[in-house]
Amino acid sequence: MNDTDRTGLWLVGARGSVATTVATGLAMMTSRAHGRDGLVTELPVFVDAGLCPLDAIVTGGHDVSEAPLAKRAAALADAGVIPASALVLVGDELDRADERLRRGYDPEEEGQAEGVQRLADDIREFREREGLARVVVVNVSSTEPVAQDDPAFESLAELESAWAAGRSPLPPSSTYAAAAFLAGAAFVDFTPSTGARVPALRELAEREQVPWGGSDGKTGETLVKSVLAPMFAARALRVRSWSGTNLLGGGDGATLADPDAMASKAVSKARGLEAMLGYPVEGPVHIDNITDLGDWKTAWDNITFSGFLGTRMTMQFTWQGCDSSLAAPLVIDIARLADLALRRGESGPMTQLGFFFKDPVDSEEHQLFTQLDSLGRWACAS
Amino acid sequence: MNDTDRTGLWLVGARGSVATTVATGLAMMTSRAHGRDGLVTELPVFVDAGLCPLDAIVTGGHDVSEAPLAKRAAALADAGVIPASALVLVGDELDRADERLRRGYDPEEEGQAEGVQRLADDIREFREREGLARVVVVNVSSTEPVAQDDPAFESLAELESAWAAGRSPLPPSSTYAAAAFLAGAAFVDFTPSTGARVPALRELAEREQVPWGGSDGKTGETLVKSVLAPMFAARALRVRSWSGTNLLGGGDGATLADPDAMASKAVSKARGLEAMLGYPVEGPVHIDNITDLGDWKTAWDNITFSGFLGTRMTMQFTWQGCDSSLAAPLVIDIARLADLALRRGESGPMTQLGFFFKDPVDSEEHQLFTQLDSLGRWACAS
Amino acid sequence: MNDTDRTGLWLVGARGSVATTVATGLAMMTSRAHGRDGLVTELPVFVDAGLCPLDAIVTGGHDVSEAPLAKRAAALADAGVIPASALVLVGDELDRADERLRRGYDPEEEGQAEGVQRLADDIREFREREGLARVVVVNVSSTEPVAQDDPAFESLAELESAWAAGRSPLPPSSTYAAAAFLAGAAFVDFTPSTGARVPALRELAEREQVPWGGSDGKTGETLVKSVLAPMFAARALRVRSWSGTNLLGGGDGATLADPDAMASKAVSKARGLEAMLGYPVEGPVHIDNITDLGDWKTAWDNITFSGFLGTRMTMQFTWQGCDSSLAAPLVIDIARLADLALRRGESGPMTQLGFFFKDPVDSEEHQLFTQLDSLGRWACAS
Amino acid sequence: MNDTDRTGLWLVGARGSVATTVATGLAMMTSRAHGRDGLVTELPVFVDAGLCPLDAIVTGGHDVSEAPLAKRAAALADAGVIPASALVLVGDELDRADERLRRGYDPEEEGQAEGVQRLADDIREFREREGLARVVVVNVSSTEPVAQDDPAFESLAELESAWAAGRSPLPPSSTYAAAAFLAGAAFVDFTPSTGARVPALRELAEREQVPWGGSDGKTGETLVKSVLAPMFAARALRVRSWSGTNLLGGGDGATLADPDAMASKAVSKARGLEAMLGYPVEGPVHIDNITDLGDWKTAWDNITFSGFLGTRMTMQFTWQGCDSSLAAPLVIDIARLADLALRRGESGPMTQLGFFFKDPVDSEEHQLFTQLDSLGRWACAS
Ligand SMILES: NC(=O)c1ccc[n+]([C@@H]2O[C@H](COP(=O)([O-])OP(=O)(O)OC[C@H]3O[C@@H](n4cnc5c(N)ncnc54)[C@H](O)[C@@H]3O)[C@@H](O)[C@H]2O)c1
Ligand SMILES: NC(=O)c1ccc[n+]([C@@H]2O[C@H](COP(=O)([O-])OP(=O)(O)OC[C@H]3O[C@@H](n4cnc5c(N)ncnc54)[C@H](O)[C@@H]3O)[C@@H](O)[C@H]2O)c1
Ligand SMILES: NC(=O)c1ccc[n+]([C@@H]2O[C@H](COP(=O)([O-])OP(=O)(O)OC[C@H]3O[C@@H](n4cnc5c(N)ncnc54)[C@H](O)[C@@H]3O)[C@@H](O)[C@H]2O)c1
Ligand SMILES: NC(=O)c1ccc[n+]([C@@H]2O[C@H](COP(=O)([O-])OP(=O)(O)OC[C@H]3O[C@@H](n4cnc5c(N)ncnc54)[C@H](O)[C@@H]3O)[C@@H](O)[C@H]2O)c1
Ligand code: NA
Ligand code: NA
Repeated sequence: MNDTDRTGLWLVGARGSVATTVATGLAMMTSRAHGRDGLVTELPVFVDAGLCPLDAIVTGGHDVSEAPLAKRAAALADAGVIPASALVLVGDELDRADERLRRGYDPEEEGQAEGVQRLADDIREFREREGLARVVVVNVSSTEPVAQDDPAFESLAELESAWAAGRSPLPPSSTYAAAAFLAGAAFVDFTPSTGARVPALRELAEREQVPWGGSDGKTGETLVKSVLAPMFAARALRVRSWSGTNLLGGGDGATLADPDAMASKAVSKARGLEAMLGYPVEGPVHIDNITDLGDWKTAWDNITFSGFLGTRMTMQFTWQGCDSSLAAPLVIDIARLADLALRRGESGPMTQLGFFFKDPVDSEEHQLFTQLDSLGRWACAS
Repeated sequence: MNDTDRTGLWLVGARGSVATTVATGLAMMTSRAHGRDGLVTELPVFVDAGLCPLDAIVTGGHDVSEAPLAKRAAALADAGVIPASALVLVGDELDRADERLRRGYDPEEEGQAEGVQRLADDIREFREREGLARVVVVNVSSTEPVAQDDPAFESLAELESAWAAGRSPLPPSSTYAAAAFLAGAAFVDFTPSTGARVPALRELAEREQVPWGGSDGKTGETLVKSVLAPMFAARALRVRSWSGTNLLGGGDGATLADPDAMASKAVSKARGLEAMLGYPVEGPVHIDNITDLGDWKTAWDNITFSGFLGTRMTMQFTWQGCDSSLAAPLVIDIARLADLALRRGESGPMTQLGFFFKDPVDSEEHQLFTQLDSLGRWACAS
Repeated sequence: MNDTDRTGLWLVGARGSVATTVATGLAMMTSRAHGRDGLVTELPVFVDAGLCPLDAIVTGGHDVSEAPLAKRAAALADAGVIPASALVLVGDELDRADERLRRGYDPEEEGQAEGVQRLADDIREFREREGLARVVVVNVSSTEPVAQDDPAFESLAELESAWAAGRSPLPPSSTYAAAAFLAGAAFVDFTPSTGARVPALRELAEREQVPWGGSDGKTGETLVKSVLAPMFAARALRVRSWSGTNLLGGGDGATLADPDAMASKAVSKARGLEAMLGYPVEGPVHIDNITDLGDWKTAWDNITFSGFLGTRMTMQFTWQGCDSSLAAPLVIDIARLADLALRRGESGPMTQLGFFFKDPVDSEEHQLFTQLDSLGRWACAS
Repeated sequence: MNDTDRTGLWLVGARGSVATTVATGLAMMTSRAHGRDGLVTELPVFVDAGLCPLDAIVTGGHDVSEAPLAKRAAALADAGVIPASALVLVGDELDRADERLRRGYDPEEEGQAEGVQRLADDIREFREREGLARVVVVNVSSTEPVAQDDPAFESLAELESAWAAGRSPLPPSSTYAAAAFLAGAAFVDFTPSTGARVPALRELAEREQVPWGGSDGKTGETLVKSVLAPMFAARALRVRSWSGTNLLGGGDGATLADPDAMASKAVSKARGLEAMLGYPVEGPVHIDNITDLGDWKTAWDNITFSGFLGTRMTMQFTWQGCDSSLAAPLVIDIARLADLALRRGESGPMTQLGFFFKDPVDSEEHQLFTQLDSLGRWACAS
């Protein structure tokens, strides 16, 4: 990596909780006002990977909201997500970051074909204006409903004909993915959306020779699952039921109050357990919007299992985490790692990023430490 | 391994909960009355290790109690540790196993020098009478107080002079270790005792060319710790406190009501967390005797941690496990693996068994999956 | 009360878990094989109420299933709901109880008008054959969907015209209530059904001068709520959210897997919190069928509250209860208390029974100790 | 009560967390900057009691520390105990309150006889300077070790001879109680100290005709116990074990790291359960100092119980409370109620205050709602 290279981190949903925490955190860390807890890419295992330094990352992004970043940051400070001191220490930097944000895609206002071009232009313009070597687009916008199948998903040719015919077949997340690809940027979906996986977009990424990945950041209950399920397996203990309840408020909680968005999230969360254990396990996963909790999530899991001679036992855990605080450093990690893939000229699905996701693209590996091993090996391979 | 080889599993504390569950379980599994859940050595990773079959294991052992095995089994069935059907299905087999048990060592009755010889003779006689190829001794007797240092521990020569002078410097667990070594058997301590680690006994094991290991079976709270602590580390989350409370009754609970025995256990439990995280963490670990719980243990852990920009979060877990049911299959696993070491002519500390222990001998590795990897590689190496 | 009086306890759903536990428990207690834990009417406060003795209670009932009581009892013993010894000790008595059971009402087989008459005849015949002074009918059948409104509910006259016209407007639970009233028996609904509350049935009870009550036995999460909510109120702490998850299997769990039955139960559970606190509180209550749990229910509640100067705090509880074991003694308590009401010639809604119910008829009082006070005062009033 | 009456609240430990929260809260509420959540005396039941208005309460007190109130308030705001806005809104008022504080009693510096006189003079001077109608002294200083018995405790005469002889037999808390009595003030111990209960001090209170009470504010685990234990009793469920772990930091946590202070607290917490249930229950109560938790306490209780036919069940709860925030309004409640007792000319032990305490003086009643009933009746009696 050239020492003066700078990398763009373009956030879709750039005014949301996660994105605002990312922008604040980058500013705090590069101004030395805070340490690097929570950043996986600062672990010793990544020391030889030659990742881009934090102060070489420039943020920008799209959002359909126009609420100022500083205002969102103030709300996050009130809720205890970020330190109150940040408002003073990096307020100016947030205002500058705000100027790099652009209007998101709204299907009511723009046709999809034009939208994709306009979004891609925004990304290209960001790269040029800021003199960036590479750009990584990460989607941290509101969870969208599971997309309805459409014949236009089947190939790039069919998608392009649909666009030519004035149709808008893609869900919003895929619109951003298409724009990223066209602009030569990497694209990673941190939300549960899997829209980038349809054949038409896979083809587009291949044609543009860019890497892409996702989806659904693994920050709480599923993170714990990804070490506990292998623990039961390692001890030959049979998991008989695994029930989970997630209570959360905030923007994400409000979105998930919509049953369609919820469905998308629940599907993503349920994946993995069977893959890790090798057999299906009964038990629902609930996600409830409790406005009083704000950005804080409380998850409770009840696991029944049996062992030697069939004896029944129980384990329960409670997780009280701050979602945006857990997600933000991972978004930065992902940006650094996707930047590395771009620099290496890799393209196609980044299966090495499974460590970060509930629903890792093109991978059935859900065990956290196995995922970390693969990631470390990939990052340090030269 | 010769197809007709049979292996002896000699249990110290052979009439206790764990030992009785081992004997009942072996009988149930070999009579096809029950499956093999809980047995780690039945996992696919051990398929090529050529471990001795379950029906080639013959049990025997020492105990200072004379309560019949069948009676202990009835109590365990009442408590739900083993299925009630076992009493009928394998009652005869338990009576036969009972006849293979011998009187344990009581310092009030025997000098230590004679005691060691007598115990070793019991083991030799067991091997000959039953026509066994090899014998593994596993200590599952009551937790003993932490041993006082003694100059006789420093070398085999000094130990032998002490014995010659009529002194009895070793704690009971080491007396059994010495007897095992003299009889050419492997010795593994499943209790918190670390007596086998003193220089004098290390020398003896070396002289007799036998393998040995331990200590303190990892079956509950510490098992969970060994996957959760690495999870926090993998995500660069800083653990700020980790407090634990263990409630248990049964024989083990009653023993641990003695503060000296408790101290031994608590020390063993505390090890590991700092090793896994790389820094010390505040927080006590309590072990309380609650007779009402019988063999069932309830552990509750409260973990506080911080992440990105210092945000504080909390995780808690509750573990309601049946201790003897969790421990018994591991004792069988250990017997099969130590048998393999004997067969391979290995001697000295079996560091590959760390997967099973809270306080693994000569190892600072406490991460469960790293331990399982090492174990699997060792077992399948030819 | 005449010393030789005997009272009939007629159970609707007489072959279910709760009913079988009632029959087994009565047999165990009257044969002195077991003590009286769990029976509220054995508390000192009821000593002067002159309730009928346990050995003066004779059970009978309706069920649409034909599975023998003894078989259900065996399943309950396996699951740890009742002691295994009961199968031997009171097996004969269960077989005799079985002979007192009659075929339940199935709308596919019988018109409702005839059905009601036939059910009432069964009850009358039970009273005469057994020489009973009074009969109390308690509904412990499967939870039914919330009933659709029907004009026939509005008055007894309209109900009778509907029947005359060959219509079957009542839900099953109300059919049993009507039969009980016609037979001069008290009727109490232990299920969430509120069918007995419609004007037509109120009139019928009035005409027949019988007491009636319900509904939905308060045995777990709601029981705890009925003391914790008043605790927060007594300390002027503001409850901000109260979320609950109930995991259960068994017959009841299976029924509640039907979303309609579930709706009925959830409504009943939600009542009360607002009444106790004086303001509405956000938070869903889930009921999930986890077959692995059998008759054991695990409930987890997460409560957020604020106090002085608005400081936010949290409380959580986990309840691991055996539903049938908690419900059965209450059914016996209710039988003794409704018998007292009958003996005193009281009729209409038994609001004094609110202590037992999640959704007490004609009462807004949900605080457990206030309810117990009222009940005790009523019972001991002469 | 005369409309212009003002009442003094004299706090021992006036610079501690609880006391600082009291002072801040009074200032916030009287300046209308905050509502009255957490204040029991604002509940409807006390409306007719004629309690002194909040803005008629003037604070003062003793402390051995000299740290400014404003500094302590800043630390409490950082920890989330009080709102950050309070520092600005009522900072001036805190500085004024600071000027009303006096140097506490240090046995190294003063003889006890002189000390008592000096402390009493401070209280008298406070009453006169501020023109107060009455003064209530509440002890919220650090928990002190359980006091050693001394013959001087046995009567006022013996205490006075001991003082005359230059001895200092009383523990610090009793020194403040004696001073309060001499100054004609009511005295209430919010700490676990029971020093005011010895015969010598009872006599002194009687002679001075002042009321007194305590001890150990019931703010967390014990509060919950005082409604759950009666719940089990009301349902005839047999509690078999009740184990508790309390994790807390802050000043109180640090003090309790001293085993002697801890012993005092643990004794106080253990009282009550047997009284509420009518039989002894096994299970330890731990109190651990976890500095990372600051003023936030996490308590975990595990309760095993059995019901009908002996079936075993379990309940657990976790309480995450802010100790000072829970305690402060109760201190204000106590001041208002003791003020009422003074106004009514009552003297001797205030048994009506049991609602507030883990270890209520001269009372075996521990059930929260029974305590609230008594308190309400006493307060509203004219
Ligand atoms: N925080 C976590 O731990 C975590 C974990 C996994 C996934 N996620 C996902 O991350 C996403 C963001 O979470 P959040 O808490 O920041 O949510 P948020 O509601 O605070 O922010 C979402 C932002 O997306 C914007 N947005 C909505 N639709 C858009 C569109 N079509 N184009 C551009 N912007 C749009 C919104 O205006 C808002 O500013 C969610 O989808 C969430 O499910 C979060
Ligand atoms: N069960 C678990 O999960 C687990 C985990 C780790 C360690 N352990 C350890 O395993 C050991 C056994 O546990 P348990 O529940 O079976 O206990 P237990 O009390 O039921 O059995 C112990 C047996 O050892 C016998 N014994 C005592 N002193 C002896 C001596 N000097 N020589 C020979 N026998 C003696 C006793 O008579 C008894 O029969 C304990 O030390 C326990 O700490 C158990
Ligand atoms: N156990 C508790 O703690 C508790 C608490 C509150 C309410 N309840 C209610 O008690 C009821 C019984 O619970 P259970 O666990 O015994 O359930 P269950 O499923 O074991 O038994 C229900 C019985 O009702 C019978 N039944 C179904 N429809 C009938 C009909 N139309 N007429 C006559 N019999 C019929 C079934 O055949 C079955 O034998 C449920 O409605 C449950 O919601 C139970
Ligand atoms: N907060 C609660 O929920 C709660 C409940 C019950 C009891 N309490 C008790 O209230 C007391 C105060 O708690 P806190 O959290 O404010 O503690 P803290 O440590 O913050 O404050 C105690 C104060 O007492 C002062 N002090 C110590 N010795 C003194 C002496 N001899 N004379 C005068 N002042 C002295 C200290 O300097 C300190 O300022 C403790 O005893 C605690 O056990 C608190
Ligand atoms: Na045990
Ligand atoms: Na405190």
